Amino acid sequence: MNFDLPLFILILDLFGTVVFAAAGVLAAAQRRLDLFGVIVVGTVTAIGGGTLRDLILGRLPVFWVQDNLYIWITVTTSVLVFASARRLRFPHQAIQIADAIGLAVFTIIGANVALSLGHSPLIAVVTGVMTGVFGGIVRDVLTAVKPMIFEKEIYATAVFAGAFVYVNLTWFLPDHWETFNTLVAMSVVLGLRLAAIRWHLHLPVFLSVEDQRDEDHKINRKDSQ
Amino acid sequence: MNFDLPLFILILDLFGTVVFAAAGVLAAAQRRLDLFGVIVVGTVTAIGGGTLRDLILGRLPVFWVQDNLYIWITVTTSVLVFASARRLRFPHQAIQIADAIGLAVFTIIGANVALSLGHSPLIAVVTGVMTGVFGGIVRDVLTAVKPMIFEKEIYATAVFAGAFVYVNLTWFLPDHWETFNTLVAMSVVLGLRLAAIRWHLHLPVFLSVEDQRDEDHKINRKDSQ
Amino acid sequence: MNFDLPLFILILDLFGTVVFAAAGVLAAAQRRLDLFGVIVVGTVTAIGGGTLRDLILGRLPVFWVQDNLYIWITVTTSVLVFASARRLRFPHQAIQIADAIGLAVFTIIGANVALSLGHSPLIAVVTGVMTGVFGGIVRDVLTAVKPMIFEKEIYATAVFAGAFVYVNLTWFLPDHWETFNTLVAMSVVLGLRLAAIRWHLHLPVFLSVEDQRDEDHKINRKDSQ
Repeated sequence: MNFDLPLFILILDLFGTVVFAAAGVLAAAQRRLDLFGVIVVGTVTAIGGGTLRDLILGRLPVFWVQDNLYIWITVTTSVLVFASARRLRFPHQAIQIADAIGLAVFTIIGANVALSLGHSPLIAVVTGVMTGVFGGIVRDVLTAVKPMIFEKEIYATAVFAGAFVYVNLTWFLPDHWETFNTLVAMSVVLGLRLAAIRWHLHLPVFLSVEDQRDEDHKINRKDSQ
Repeated sequence: MNFDLPLFILILDLFGTVVFAAAGVLAAAQRRLDLFGVIVVGTVTAIGGGTLRDLILGRLPVFWVQDNLYIWITVTTSVLVFASARRLRFPHQAIQIADAIGLAVFTIIGANVALSLGHSPLIAVVTGVMTGVFGGIVRDVLTAVKPMIFEKEIYATAVFAGAFVYVNLTWFLPDHWETFNTLVAMSVVLGLRLAAIRWHLHLPVFLSVEDQRDEDHKINRKDSQ
Repeated sequence: MNFDLPLFILILDLFGTVVFAAAGVLAAAQRRLDLFGVIVVGTVTAIGGGTLRDLILGRLPVFWVQDNLYIWITVTTSVLVFASARRLRFPHQAIQIADAIGLAVFTIIGANVALSLGHSPLIAVVTGVMTGVFGGIVRDVLTAVKPMIFEKEIYATAVFAGAFVYVNLTWFLPDHWETFNTLVAMSVVLGLRLAAIRWHLHLPVFLSVEDQRDEDHKINRKDSQ
């Protein structure tokens, strides 16, 4: 067990590991991998964020080397989803929703770990964001799809908002509100992501002067990927 | 010298470094890099896996910072292959075969290092797999080709099998069988990979219900990369 | 403050952080990200090289965790460039020039840090090269454009030359010439890159025998990306 984490956070961490591994396996479906390739993608997606977190904070060896449980979970989840996905029909949005849940969990845990090591609120926000998004970025780069963080819908914004809320609640509320803080902050990430997926919400995007002129002339630039 | 490793493993490590650097340089040929670009790709391919291994296990600074020999080898190999590849004709499979040899060597060394630091057999298998495949993944992402680990032929499976065999032999046989264990486990990885390259062997791939229906209707979905 | 660095190097480091963040934001323009996506790309570009440097050298936690200033700079720069790029017209070469400045600064700082930790000149050159190029590679992989290091123009060569000059000057000149050494070595990287951008300079590229025959027959192979 990763005894640095309080029990409630630990349970969330294991839960996030399951859903992120599942998101990785479902994404791997698009690349037609065999069982062991699927285990690699599921595992890397699930442990990628926490591994980056431990590296930048200097908590070495990384969490899953210290605690075998995480790898057992990612391998078991990968095998089960691999087996069931051949029979059951997963809706396309299953990946997005699993990703949203894992994102919410890992962002808050990343911020929590940074704060518990005595780092500043700013560093906690950045560490939270990196922990949350890294697994999904690696998954998307490996499976050669456009990373979700670069889709038009709100993504990085949801992660920043959740980490920001968590760090502020932790700063202003007494310690024993920790569980409350965690649930509220996770709800912010998850709520924003689910709403963004459902209604295709997005913020104003980066448009240079040239782009805006193109937009005015209704010329749709083809995406260059 | 990397004195943590027994002499036999050390020699294999240097040999794996040469062939992985060569695999990186031959892959870089497809991107028409100049000499220094080729040195970067050859070096990153050769030291990538071991660097990740040392980071996750917390053996810092990483091995090639502690021992200049590795960098001398990758730079020399890169220059020699760069020079000779302009004159000699390397068959297309040269990259695959060099990759297979490096894969076999680095997987077993990764597992060996994890075990020698006292980590569990499970972590040794995972560390071995990551050490083996990471250099090649970075090479393929940098040179923008589909990573070999996602090709249809057996790849991740060979690496898992070799790491699994190595960890079990080490567990059940006495210490002085170490050289035997290493050779058997490396032969498993190398044999499976060479057989897979030669006869295009593959395991059942991940197919969702929809994919299978498509297959039944003989509709070939175009690969989306 | 990152007190390991002398004041002059520190100022350069902060300056390099600003221009690399700006290069990341301008590159993100091509992917139409929203504000928070832009902050992620700008920040990762600016701190990526130094983060890799600290990981491989074992200086943990990494520099920006120890010193909040770097993150304040990347976030502020990202927001300002995001806001102004919607109004001002940045020439296409702005990314290349910002990249060249950051490249020069981070390469020399990477080599400086490795030498100051007592590592060999060879390792200092390699660490300098990795520190210089890593942020840009991550930026280009994330925004799905061909990494600049793989463009035909001189890039890796400029970085190698600058790191080589810096390490040699530091070896042969007395310590109090440090500022001179730094400026000369940075000028080498920056001068070579700017000349390469201006006049499309390149070294002989890697061509296999087959490629050369193709060239002779004036068959232009389409780039496979």
